[in-house]
Amino acid sequence: MQTVIIGSGNVAYHLAKAFIQNRIEIHQIFGRNEIELSKISKELAIPYSTENLAEADLYIIAVSDSAVENVSEFIKNDNALVAHTSGSLPKEILKGHYRKASFYPLQTFSKTKKLDYSKIPFFIEADDQIDEKLLFEIASVISDRVEISTYEKRKYIHLTAVFACNFVNHLFARAKEISDSQALDFNYFLPLIKETVEKISHIDPKSAQTGPA
Amino acid sequence: MQTVIIGSGNVAYHLAKAFIQNRIEIHQIFGRNEIELSKISKELAIPYSTENLAEADLYIIAVSDSAVENVSEFIKNDNALVAHTSGSLPKEILKGHYRKASFYPLQTFSKTKKLDYSKIPFFIEADDQIDEKLLFEIASVISDRVEISTYEKRKYIHLTAVFACNFVNHLFARAKEISDSQALDFNYFLPLIKETVEKISHIDPKSAQTGPA
Repeated sequence: MQTVIIGSGNVAYHLAKAFIQNRIEIHQIFGRNEIELSKISKELAIPYSTENLAEADLYIIAVSDSAVENVSEFIKNDNALVAHTSGSLPKEILKGHYRKASFYPLQTFSKTKKLDYSKIPFFIEADDQIDEKLLFEIASVISDRVEISTYEKRKYIHLTAVFACNFVNHLFARAKEISDSQALDFNYFLPLIKETVEKISHIDPKSAQTGPA
Repeated sequence: MQTVIIGSGNVAYHLAKAFIQNRIEIHQIFGRNEIELSKISKELAIPYSTENLAEADLYIIAVSDSAVENVSEFIKNDNALVAHTSGSLPKEILKGHYRKASFYPLQTFSKTKKLDYSKIPFFIEADDQIDEKLLFEIASVISDRVEISTYEKRKYIHLTAVFACNFVNHLFARAKEISDSQALDFNYFLPLIKETVEKISHIDPKSAQTGPA
């Protein structure tokens, strides 16, 4: 099976790396940003292109939500299976006559940080059970936590993640602004932050809530 | 030197435990809640009372912010040093003719979770340098991160902690509400949450901010 990853951002990079580490071949990595593509290509030994999208059986579109629809129109192979990695978009956003799917890794990615891919939950949706099974098996090579999902369910997973990750990080940024404004060392707050998170692995966050700090 | 801890909540318990673990003697633990006091007393082998506050050189008031002022009036020993552990209250909230101080551990505490006390930052304020030095030395037996502070500085430390800990935990609680409402397993979100926190040990939270999830 030929697989192409489209995108050169954090998700595309880590997905490509997770595939390669688990000996799943990537036929090509395709995108607009030649600098990033060539870096990924070099590190992971995957051919890249910014112009000629290779023929493949499976395309994984790992680009920003706003670009998914446009990018999906490049794929002209009606026999392909095309999956995007967005948490919030329905698979029907994909524009083409191919089979459509969602391949959603529930994690926050940054290029400079190593990740244990086996712990990342993957949520799979496809038009039929054969494609679901195929994507489930691919994700299972990478991760121990793969689930067949629905768009309805994924919307709530994504919303939960926005609260637990994006909004939380925004609070960290505001907290750091306050501490920077007083030339406090933000490292002082890391044990507190780690303990706040550590707690909710054992205790319901509602029970863990204390008064101000 | 005789030391008494007043309070039977999370902070009082962990402070008493940190003292005992580091061979600093606690003369008495004093409070209203006999059930909690007797548990702490039994575990740490410290005498307790709900009625007769022992004579001591140092009283540490580790009660909720709203109770600090009232509790401080029990102390009639004008030769004592009295410190509270509140992040937000000035030391002048203490009502008595004794010397006043602040002994603020920057951490979130719950009784059921073990903590590495050596990593907890302590911020010290007192009326004069002798008391500052005394409290600094006591805190330094427990922790590697002790600083002399000012009320002005502590207010900002506390505000930062409220953003980075209380508000963040509130978001975790809301996130869990959403995931519970759909019968999703909240454990799915723990790797995401841990990575969100892990990131800010290495990257400025502003740079770590991604789009929704």
